[in-house]
Amino acid sequence: MSRMTILTEAELRRIVPLDLQAVACVENAFEALATKPVAMPPILRLDIPEHRGEVDVKTAYVPGVDGFAIKISPGFFDNPQIGLPSVNGMMVLLSARTGLVEALLLDNGYLTDVRTAAAGAVAAKHLSRADSSVAAIFGAGMQARLQLKALMLVRPIREARIWARDWVKAEALAAKLREELGIVVRAENDGAKAVAGADIIVTTTPSETPIIKADWLSAGQHVTAMGSDAEHKNEIDPKAIGAASLYVADSLKQTRLLGELHHAISAGHVKAETEFPELGQIVARKRAGRRSPSAITICDLTGTGVQDTAIATLARDRAAAARAGTTFES
Amino acid sequence: MSRMTILTEAELRRIVPLDLQAVACVENAFEALATKPVAMPPILRLDIPEHRGEVDVKTAYVPGVDGFAIKISPGFFDNPQIGLPSVNGMMVLLSARTGLVEALLLDNGYLTDVRTAAAGAVAAKHLSRADSSVAAIFGAGMQARLQLKALMLVRPIREARIWARDWVKAEALAAKLREELGIVVRAENDGAKAVAGADIIVTTTPSETPIIKADWLSAGQHVTAMGSDAEHKNEIDPKAIGAASLYVADSLKQTRLLGELHHAISAGHVKAETEFPELGQIVARKRAGRRSPSAITICDLTGTGVQDTAIATLARDRAAAARAGTTFES
Repeated sequence: MSRMTILTEAELRRIVPLDLQAVACVENAFEALATKPVAMPPILRLDIPEHRGEVDVKTAYVPGVDGFAIKISPGFFDNPQIGLPSVNGMMVLLSARTGLVEALLLDNGYLTDVRTAAAGAVAAKHLSRADSSVAAIFGAGMQARLQLKALMLVRPIREARIWARDWVKAEALAAKLREELGIVVRAENDGAKAVAGADIIVTTTPSETPIIKADWLSAGQHVTAMGSDAEHKNEIDPKAIGAASLYVADSLKQTRLLGELHHAISAGHVKAETEFPELGQIVARKRAGRRSPSAITICDLTGTGVQDTAIATLARDRAAAARAGTTFES
Repeated sequence: MSRMTILTEAELRRIVPLDLQAVACVENAFEALATKPVAMPPILRLDIPEHRGEVDVKTAYVPGVDGFAIKISPGFFDNPQIGLPSVNGMMVLLSARTGLVEALLLDNGYLTDVRTAAAGAVAAKHLSRADSSVAAIFGAGMQARLQLKALMLVRPIREARIWARDWVKAEALAAKLREELGIVVRAENDGAKAVAGADIIVTTTPSETPIIKADWLSAGQHVTAMGSDAEHKNEIDPKAIGAASLYVADSLKQTRLLGELHHAISAGHVKAETEFPELGQIVARKRAGRRSPSAITICDLTGTGVQDTAIATLARDRAAAARAGTTFES
């Protein structure tokens, strides 16, 4: 007989908002990835081409953390035609001591949104200039909104520009964020103009061709590219990776295969074997981050299982403290 | 908002007993594996050596089946010291059309027990002599018990011998099965004697050295080896694989790596590239099964994701028909 807590999306939205504690837990996860013998096996992936569906299953064990998450992330791209979201999913949190299921987090992808945005905040905290006040966000989806909110937790952002292929969506998101965040937010349909004068640029699109040109970037800027989580996706001009003062990966093993780095290697702008720093090594002060106010830094985020384990254990702990969720025995 | 059914172990034990329908659903799964473009990605495996723990995640999509299971199987081998079972786990059943979670099957490994035993019945049905009446079961655990029950569903078994390294456990299981099944069941501490005169031999142990010698086997016998699901496990003398009239795998790709076949290849008794038949090809009549009453047949079962998908969809359908389980929205 095992006893577990079931948490719904509504409960998780209430108890795990995107806040500084969420950022800290993801920051610790990156540090663990760089300093401890984390076990993070390759992603299990199942494709169902008849229904334009795919499922990824990710997991990671961080020594010293008493639970680990197994995350199931389906993406079924015909769903919107029948009024359902494309992306769904849930996490199962197991005890690292006994393997028993401790919690079922029926988040429909919400916790992934939070941990992904939190990683953007960690990247900005360690790589952007401390006085960064202007942000350019590429994309108009959920992550565009959350990445800007995440930046505001760690940097004194007072202005943002939103660029999206679809101008109507960019305008709508800018209006919403003005209202929600109380800062200057405007839509900008010229990518170069969105980048010019921005301190932090975050790309959140599923683009398969670069949306940021290398020669748009100027001294002092930081770029976080978080859209690419698959081989064919590419948001940043491969030349920019080679030209940057500092390139940082969430997981070098992954970005060599899936991230912006992968395209820069293919195009011959950087060598495949270059030992770029990982974000966690910078958090742990094992490698240097930004060295000068004029450096151009790029952080390549592909998403890691340690982030899921971090956010899932936070959710379980918050649920216990708030006595949230439904207890279930089986 | 998605709606799912949660089924506890007690509910699953009630609605999915080991019966002929469970055997048929696993038989169909093997047939699909041999005849349809089944997607069955490699197992995701996470090891937690500090706590002698491991977790396997398996999945498989069978075209035409409207759901697919993702099975989480933890094994934590220090658990018995604190009064918990070593093996636990659950399955998540997702819609193959939308990726939405349809059911959470909190089975603590029960459905795996059923689908594993059902595979033994499928093997016996297609490979043993139809008049098989004497069974020898190696092992005294849950699968020893269930494999004998499964054989009785498909063959006129009237006598069984139980061999186990631990004589006390063999005696206890024999007594229990006599009572439960109403046939002659006796413990036998000499493996050769247990095999002599048996029509069907089933090995269900985690042994790492062969417990069945090649020269114990005689004309007309069928052997199902289901204990090995990892490289280091080995129940059958590698010589016996080379000497058998017919060797059959559940999945040749797997048995070359994990099964009895793997050891026979290493020992040089068979060639690595030999295209042995798979159980599903025999079910589908694409390859021949037993050719004569005097043949010696061996079936090597390592466990496949299609069996999980089959039993999980059966569980969901039975739950719907019986209005069993708890509906949960998130």
